[in-house]
Amino acid sequence: MLYDLIIVQFSKMLGNLNHILDKANQNADSRKIQMEVLLNSRLAPDQFNFIRQIQIACDTAKLCAARISGKDSPSHDDSEKTLSELKTRIEDTIKYLKGFSENDFAGGMERHISQPRWEGKYLTGHEYVVQHAVPNIYFHITTAYSILRHNGVDIGKKDFLGEMPFKK
Amino acid sequence: MLYDLIIVQFSKMLGNLNHILDKANQNADSRKIQMEVLLNSRLAPDQFNFIRQIQIACDTAKLCAARISGKDSPSHDDSEKTLSELKTRIEDTIKYLKGFSENDFAGGMERHISQPRWEGKYLTGHEYVVQHAVPNIYFHITTAYSILRHNGVDIGKKDFLGEMPFKK
Repeated sequence: MLYDLIIVQFSKMLGNLNHILDKANQNADSRKIQMEVLLNSRLAPDQFNFIRQIQIACDTAKLCAARISGKDSPSHDDSEKTLSELKTRIEDTIKYLKGFSENDFAGGMERHISQPRWEGKYLTGHEYVVQHAVPNIYFHITTAYSILRHNGVDIGKKDFLGEMPFKK
Repeated sequence: MLYDLIIVQFSKMLGNLNHILDKANQNADSRKIQMEVLLNSRLAPDQFNFIRQIQIACDTAKLCAARISGKDSPSHDDSEKTLSELKTRIEDTIKYLKGFSENDFAGGMERHISQPRWEGKYLTGHEYVVQHAVPNIYFHITTAYSILRHNGVDIGKKDFLGEMPFKK
């Protein structure tokens, strides 16, 4: 469950995001809007812009996998400014996630997870995944999606969810 | 894990949403805005409004618990128009969720889950929870949150996530 929730599903959601970026770019082209305008848009003046939402979504996935497995993660300096750079960030993150196997998460539910701004406090791996990482990644991907929807990009819930493995 | 993901965490998120509604109402009062204006706001003309986002978030939680456990769920006619009616809808859903125990979900991962518009196709319980119900509930709660943020309501990520069970 942990592996599916973190690795399989986060990879899928980041892949959906990559696909949404392509649709946004086509839409911007057809409306003669510079893609950078969309990338720098936000829903409120004191909220992060689209680029930052993507960076945080990627880091949420990367850091969750790293912390639950106890492995190191590559660092990113959040310098992306273009569509192509953002897509590379997403693809690098997916590649990093796909390097994990189920065994890497053995004992992950009980691991103590902390980060500098928690000032020495911790969550168990289980609490961190369910109450922190999962809500956070969906928060940032949905907000990125909403920024595009608000700006008239023609995307829908199916683009957000991706394909379902339906069976007959 | 399944019980925590569906019952404990969905209840928590709906409780956070209830708290966000109270903050929005106070904010509307202080700015002399009618709460109904916020409740009927949306981020794009072809996207659901705030009320509908809440109704769908509640139904996602309710139907997920019902389908995975194989139990019946109460029906709601989506007639909420006021803050008080929306809060009742949320509270009723939380009450419904809290009626489940871990045992109710035994075998839930393997259950075949379908709904009328899937035209006879199904997902396993595991696929349905990870790829459908979880992304959907966060999608609608985040969108509701974003509608308020976009309209200047003073809420932040902590209101969305709720309290973390930090330990020292």
